[in-house]
Amino acid sequence: MSVDEALLSGDRFTLSRFLTQVENDDPQVRAVLDRLYAHTGHAQRIGITGAPGTGKSSLVNLLAHNLRATRAKTVAVIAVDPSSPFSGGALLGDRVRMHDLAGDAGIFIRSMASRGALGGLALTTARMVEVFDAAGFDVILIETVGAGQAEVDITRLAHTTLVVEAPGFGDDIQAIKAGIMEIADILIVNKADLPGAESTERALRSNLEIGYSETVNRKSGHQSAIDRVPNQPEEGWIPPILRTVATAQEGGSEVWEAIEAHYAYLQRSGKLKQMERARLQKELNDLVQARLVDTWREKSGTLKMEEALQQVIERHWSPEQAADWLMD
Amino acid sequence: MSVDEALLSGDRFTLSRFLTQVENDDPQVRAVLDRLYAHTGHAQRIGITGAPGTGKSSLVNLLAHNLRATRAKTVAVIAVDPSSPFSGGALLGDRVRMHDLAGDAGIFIRSMASRGALGGLALTTARMVEVFDAAGFDVILIETVGAGQAEVDITRLAHTTLVVEAPGFGDDIQAIKAGIMEIADILIVNKADLPGAESTERALRSNLEIGYSETVNRKSGHQSAIDRVPNQPEEGWIPPILRTVATAQEGGSEVWEAIEAHYAYLQRSGKLKQMERARLQKELNDLVQARLVDTWREKSGTLKMEEALQQVIERHWSPEQAADWLMD
Repeated sequence: MSVDEALLSGDRFTLSRFLTQVENDDPQVRAVLDRLYAHTGHAQRIGITGAPGTGKSSLVNLLAHNLRATRAKTVAVIAVDPSSPFSGGALLGDRVRMHDLAGDAGIFIRSMASRGALGGLALTTARMVEVFDAAGFDVILIETVGAGQAEVDITRLAHTTLVVEAPGFGDDIQAIKAGIMEIADILIVNKADLPGAESTERALRSNLEIGYSETVNRKSGHQSAIDRVPNQPEEGWIPPILRTVATAQEGGSEVWEAIEAHYAYLQRSGKLKQMERARLQKELNDLVQARLVDTWREKSGTLKMEEALQQVIERHWSPEQAADWLMD
Repeated sequence: MSVDEALLSGDRFTLSRFLTQVENDDPQVRAVLDRLYAHTGHAQRIGITGAPGTGKSSLVNLLAHNLRATRAKTVAVIAVDPSSPFSGGALLGDRVRMHDLAGDAGIFIRSMASRGALGGLALTTARMVEVFDAAGFDVILIETVGAGQAEVDITRLAHTTLVVEAPGFGDDIQAIKAGIMEIADILIVNKADLPGAESTERALRSNLEIGYSETVNRKSGHQSAIDRVPNQPEEGWIPPILRTVATAQEGGSEVWEAIEAHYAYLQRSGKLKQMERARLQKELNDLVQARLVDTWREKSGTLKMEEALQQVIERHWSPEQAADWLMD
């Protein structure tokens, strides 16, 4: 069996080894990915994002468990460590080892240390998603902290993004602070058995309403927030707020129902195709841009660049003027 | 008096009007900025970053006040609103109007709504910094929320970055959650009169120590965290942790002393020149990249791009293969 065949059949050993090559940005990876690409586009991609301490990893555990127990679907998990030792995930002991899922052939868990991602965190994650997709996994769960650009790029890979919140910070919503409320398709109040769950949910809801009415107002100019929902159920997706107690295996089915509802909405509205197109367009644009710069640099050398930079540092040319000169 | 002369002399009316043009990405702006550029490079740039609720704006107020009261320096403040209505700044009523500074000709405050920044938040802020620099302001304070890529780009403009924290979230350090600890040159525990200031400071310190020892270990491979500080005071900068009660005007002088010490360190170590060079190099690279893409697009048109994208969407070509084809 060739490597390609082994990967496409989901052979665990070959997968593990290839994912390590992907993490190491091994030059041999590209040709294999090119060949695998024709087999992608089938997996449902779900992002799970939230601040450290919200129980993200436990929720991923619950979702994978529930999916395996109730539906005949295979699942791959990519747990992306924060890119910084300061960002807190590992530091605060948030990471949960998913022992109870080990041994199930229908699930594959890959934890990625940011240091290992030599090609960059976002690119490496995107490639891993492609590999799992080609390998035939039905569902791919991508767990990230959600702060910073790399993380935002990662959430772009997902069809549905869950933002996880937890009570215990008073009226303080971590997702609002981190600016990630707006990427949420579904909001989860995890640790819902703790005191304060009610007020966390209330705070999320009120923020959601402000955000929604702002969106409507910006789009229509005048439309008030009041007449938005009942009449136009198909105009947009309003993120539901769900409660879970992941460590007690509570709430998994409801979350899956919401995920399925969101996916159905994406298909019905044509948004799924739009998202896919936009994602691939961005990927292609980025590649073209990188190659243009490489080609230009090879041709004109770094010497001219250095000369222009020196003029800028000495304040003889503005950066714009230096760029004009370089483009000539 | 020409517009250039009026700007260089710091004329407030001309400044205000020109900054609005900068915000609107007015095409006439570039020529003026090119001419002003020769007059830049003198201002000390200080970034103030922290989550909503930490009292960032009050601290900016305190610093501007203190600088005006104790040193004969002029100061410009750029308050950058978060780019999202969800991100919290305005929403939580964090913004402080700086009434007590109004009327002082040695201070200029500019608050920027992200919607107004048509050329992008980071570019607009960078241009405003250039304008204030050319206009002769000695110190430029840049206030940002600090989450997201645009915000990180903004902090790159600063010589010294203050990260503001406040007690009241238990052992929870907002800056760690947001992943911004690592950009701090100086750490501020604001609202230090509130209960919990002690534990906030302790948490910051312990994170700092972990981070520092990791840096050392990564650099040297072996060096232990223990023998780092006393013997090599010049090897690096260890961010001090200072307490302020900004609303009560407490702690401003100590913060300025730390800022001056950091600036002196940057000069002494040669880091100031390195930073400046790196910043301008990135700016020039970004400009060249954008122009290469524009030129390429004009030449090869968008039709070929669309054709390649279609092949990618239909899974006939991988994005890499499509980029190969486009570059031919």
